[in-house]
Amino acid sequence: MITVHHLNNSRSQRILWLLEELGLDYEIVSYQRDATTSLAPESLKGVHPLGKSPVITDGNRTVAESGAIVEYLIRKYGRDRLMPDEDTAEFVSYLHWMHYAEGSAMLPVMLSLYVMRLGEAGKPLHPRIESEVQNHFGYMNEALGPRDFFVGDTLTGADIQMTFPLEAARSLGLLKGFENLGRYLDKMHERPAYKRGVERGGQYDLGN
Amino acid sequence: MITVHHLNNSRSQRILWLLEELGLDYEIVSYQRDATTSLAPESLKGVHPLGKSPVITDGNRTVAESGAIVEYLIRKYGRDRLMPDEDTAEFVSYLHWMHYAEGSAMLPVMLSLYVMRLGEAGKPLHPRIESEVQNHFGYMNEALGPRDFFVGDTLTGADIQMTFPLEAARSLGLLKGFENLGRYLDKMHERPAYKRGVERGGQYDLGN
Repeated sequence: MITVHHLNNSRSQRILWLLEELGLDYEIVSYQRDATTSLAPESLKGVHPLGKSPVITDGNRTVAESGAIVEYLIRKYGRDRLMPDEDTAEFVSYLHWMHYAEGSAMLPVMLSLYVMRLGEAGKPLHPRIESEVQNHFGYMNEALGPRDFFVGDTLTGADIQMTFPLEAARSLGLLKGFENLGRYLDKMHERPAYKRGVERGGQYDLGN
Repeated sequence: MITVHHLNNSRSQRILWLLEELGLDYEIVSYQRDATTSLAPESLKGVHPLGKSPVITDGNRTVAESGAIVEYLIRKYGRDRLMPDEDTAEFVSYLHWMHYAEGSAMLPVMLSLYVMRLGEAGKPLHPRIESEVQNHFGYMNEALGPRDFFVGDTLTGADIQMTFPLEAARSLGLLKGFENLGRYLDKMHERPAYKRGVERGGQYDLGN
C-alpha cells in the first residue's frame, strides 16, 4: 500500500494527481501548515528528517523529493503510459522538463515569494528577479506553444512536475502575458484525475 | 561527438567532470561571465533559448539542465557504472539525490546569495534563510555520515549532482560545522577525473 504524507497547499498535491492518473490505491496522512508562518508542522520530521512534503512510503521504501517520487512511481507503475521510450528524442525532452521544473523554474518563483516579504527594502533585487521570471516563463511559454503537453501529445510525468511551478507562479501573479501557460494550466485542472486528487487532498488554493 | 557549452564558475563544470569519469571524447565551447554582473553572455542564447549553462549537444540532440544532462549521459554511456540497478533500494536513493541537489539543496544557497546583496535591508529574511540552511545542510551531513559517496560505496551520478550545491555553499561560508560534507568535498576534488575536468574547463573558483 502506498501512503502519501500530504501537506495542504504544497507540492504533495501533484503526487495525489499522479496516483489518480495511475489509478493506484493509496492512503493519505494529512499535515497542516502553520496558520501564521505557513511552515510545515514538526510532525513531518517523524516521516523524513527534512520535515518537508511530499514524502511517500511504498511497502518498506520511503521516497522524498517531488522529482524522485514522480520518477519512482512512473517507473514502477506507469512506464508504459506516462514516460516516453528511452531511446527517443522525446525521452530527452522528458528528462529536461522533469528536472527543469524544480531545478530551474521554481527559483524565480521562490525568490519572488521571499523578496516580496521585504516590501520596499527588497527593491534593489526586483529588476534581476523580474528578468529571471521573464526569461524562464518566456522560455516555457514559447517551448509549450499551442500544444497540450510538454512532451509529445499525451500526458507524461513532465506535466505532473511542471504544473506546480506554473500554479505557484500564477498564485503570485507572475503568469500574466504567458498565455500558453495559462491555457495549459486550465486544461490540466479540467482532467478528472486532477480533480479527484484535489478532492481527496482537501484544501488546495493553488489550483485556481 | 559531444560538445559542452561551458560557462566559467558554473554548473557546467560538473558535466566536464562526468565526461572525464566516463572517459568520453568531448569538445568545449567556452563562455565567460560578465565581469561586473556575473551573468552569462547573450551568445549562450544561440545554443538554447534560456541562455544558461550547462547545455550539451550530442549528435543532433541538445540537452539542457544539469540533472537531465547527467541522467542522459549516464543512461547512454555509463549505465553499468554510474547508476544502481533499477529494482534496488539504492536506485531510490539515487533518484532522491539526483533531484534533491538542484530541486532542494540549491534553494537556500541561492536565497543566501541574492539576499546577501541587500546587506542590512535583507535582515528580516535572515532567520528564515538560516533555518533553511541548517535544515538542509544538517540533513545532507547526517545522511552522508562517514561514507564516501551519497549512494552505495562507489561514485554515481548522485555525487556529480550533489557536489555543486556543496561547492556553492562552501564558497559562501555556509558549510561551517558540517564536517562530513567538507570532508566529502575534499575527497571528490582529489579524484583524477575531477582534476582533469577543472584543467580542461579553465577557471573554476568553486573547487577550492
